[in-house]
Amino acid sequence: MQAISIEGGVTAAQGFLASGMYCGIRKNKSKPDLALIYSKVPCAAAAVYTQNLVKGAPIQVTRRNLADSIAQAVICNSGNANTCNADGEQKAQMMCEAAAKALHLEPEDVVVASTGVIGQVLPIEPILEATPKLAESLTEDGSADAAKAIMTTDTVVKEAAAEVTINGKTVRMGGIAKGSGMIHPNMATMLCFLTTDANIAPAVLDSALRIAVKDSFNMVSIDGDTSTNDMTAILANGLAENDPIEEGTEAFDLFTETLRAIAIRLARMVAKDGEGATKLLVCKVTGAASDADARTVAKSVICSSLLKAAMFGADANWGRVLCAIGYSGAPVDIHRVDVGFASRAGSIEVCVNGAGIPFDEEVAKKVLSEDEIDILVTLHDGNASASAFGCDLTYDYVKINGDYRT
Amino acid sequence: MQAISIEGGVTAAQGFLASGMYCGIRKNKSKPDLALIYSKVPCAAAAVYTQNLVKGAPIQVTRRNLADSIAQAVICNSGNANTCNADGEQKAQMMCEAAAKALHLEPEDVVVASTGVIGQVLPIEPILEATPKLAESLTEDGSADAAKAIMTTDTVVKEAAAEVTINGKTVRMGGIAKGSGMIHPNMATMLCFLTTDANIAPAVLDSALRIAVKDSFNMVSIDGDTSTNDMTAILANGLAENDPIEEGTEAFDLFTETLRAIAIRLARMVAKDGEGATKLLVCKVTGAASDADARTVAKSVICSSLLKAAMFGADANWGRVLCAIGYSGAPVDIHRVDVGFASRAGSIEVCVNGAGIPFDEEVAKKVLSEDEIDILVTLHDGNASASAFGCDLTYDYVKINGDYRT
Repeated sequence: MQAISIEGGVTAAQGFLASGMYCGIRKNKSKPDLALIYSKVPCAAAAVYTQNLVKGAPIQVTRRNLADSIAQAVICNSGNANTCNADGEQKAQMMCEAAAKALHLEPEDVVVASTGVIGQVLPIEPILEATPKLAESLTEDGSADAAKAIMTTDTVVKEAAAEVTINGKTVRMGGIAKGSGMIHPNMATMLCFLTTDANIAPAVLDSALRIAVKDSFNMVSIDGDTSTNDMTAILANGLAENDPIEEGTEAFDLFTETLRAIAIRLARMVAKDGEGATKLLVCKVTGAASDADARTVAKSVICSSLLKAAMFGADANWGRVLCAIGYSGAPVDIHRVDVGFASRAGSIEVCVNGAGIPFDEEVAKKVLSEDEIDILVTLHDGNASASAFGCDLTYDYVKINGDYRT
Repeated sequence: MQAISIEGGVTAAQGFLASGMYCGIRKNKSKPDLALIYSKVPCAAAAVYTQNLVKGAPIQVTRRNLADSIAQAVICNSGNANTCNADGEQKAQMMCEAAAKALHLEPEDVVVASTGVIGQVLPIEPILEATPKLAESLTEDGSADAAKAIMTTDTVVKEAAAEVTINGKTVRMGGIAKGSGMIHPNMATMLCFLTTDANIAPAVLDSALRIAVKDSFNMVSIDGDTSTNDMTAILANGLAENDPIEEGTEAFDLFTETLRAIAIRLARMVAKDGEGATKLLVCKVTGAASDADARTVAKSVICSSLLKAAMFGADANWGRVLCAIGYSGAPVDIHRVDVGFASRAGSIEVCVNGAGIPFDEEVAKKVLSEDEIDILVTLHDGNASASAFGCDLTYDYVKINGDYRT
């Protein structure tokens, strides 16, 4: 039985509610900055975090709160990362306490996250004041409101959800994400909150999450900068009443594949909405000797500033693709590499066996003028493949980041 | 005895001549595209090359020609990298033959290099036709002409030279370089040609070159892209008639230190003239546990797109410095890190023990509005230090690279 995509995001699964509002952290009052996600019953929970040695205070607190693998709510603000501040953990703890009080939970059952400027003291009063109102406004339709409230320089709401039959029961899962800049997750991810009504033990949920993240968020790069606050958390409340999903079973594969598909959809949205981006770039590597080689090559290509700028200009400068493969660190035989470009407008081969071939520049321009571009790399070295997700480098990236704090 | 800086570049040492001209590879006839460097007598020679698996054809040919560690001339074109072309090595060989014929040398005594677009067939006729004229126009004042002819998107000529007394004799050395984009040398460098009249055996020259490159070109990054055609070559013709310089002697240290200083001056010029750059960024790391840690941290900071954009906007967004230290891979205790900024306009401390401190934003703006910025990182973890050289990320970088080929 295949999974099917459904409408909605973090409230698509049974028993989950969400809300978002403006509380006063941002100067711009039209941009909501506080989100709440809540499950009617306690959930098995798992999370992965940034591998940056600088870790945001909310990550330290969430890690402690998830030590028992149980959670029932998520509170998240945008506009301030609450990182590199002396009182960071205290403030993150206060956010958990505020959410717990409003929802009649224990603070240890709350996941807390923050995103925004690093190194500015988090104003806690607006959050404490707004949280009771946020709790009152929780609804089953609140996913988009929560998704909006966690956005920073994101320009579009990122939600995805799917439904699948597991062990005879309908299981739903979905999530929201934010990305935009400082996006180059390493064994973790930008902010993403996933929910499911599946009945699944925490350890099994954790395995499924790690598999899903590996091919999705960990293959995204906007600018090569691994953030201090990356986090993906998943809550599973069991309301689907399926028999527990065990590792090594068909049910686990089905659950994980569905979760992975949702994570990839969200990862694509994050990449396409990178700071200043006008295009989603997907580097699809095939014919690699190993999974690791395929991933290394795909990520190296997607991270090349030169290639990203060329893609902005719809310039089929494939030499930059080859160059990025050459310095990736993967042991590739460069004389066997083929490169092509593809999009809705068609496809074109530009390099065979590591050397240029004549191609129609006008066709190439047309292919590269779409807003979703596949960069096709064939290594002729084995059977492994991988895809990485990135975006073009534009004037607006420079503009946004030239004066982000003001 | 200290070395002193002198005027000139690749012809500052005795017996070296150079020239540059427009031969017809570029569309823009006002931009010279072919350079020649010549020594009146055969030279000990050494070179380091890109570590990219994709290596330009000229690098393959030069490597063969330097197998005997002897050379007497350098020919270099800009406008075309002669890389990823089926006939690349044949064309590079033809360039050596043309230079050899015009200068009455063996082709094996010529260093050949190319820089420009990857994957377009090199038009050889203009080079063959121009080389005799180029040889006729060789002069002792030709350094700047040669430096101009190897430029691509560079905006300023890059020359440096120095004089030092070694074993009782005056020894001169100098060089020219080009950089601009696809600059992130790895164990090698962008194009740089160095000359000296020192009497020094090839193996000793090679050691000195590697030491000089380590702290200069290998610490530069414009955009994180390691080029396919990076090369630094040095020719030593012995006309200073000093006693041979041996490794492990004071003379070797003096020679190497002088060469290193020239290389660092050229590296700073390359970084400051990065594609679209308005500012030189130097990340100075002190208090590291090891040399490797210091280098890793300095390079990570200088490579952060987010920090580079912030520097363009003169925004003291030190959180991005800390973030880049955190993901550098060096095992740093982030709670002991101090960060400051300095320039001709003054200096300002912004982060102590990994946390922000109050600072005057106006002073910071003033410090960061200069065209040479030091980013000061103290790790309080040991006595090692390193500096890395980069530039800001600007609208013009995107503009230049959005449509480089046309």
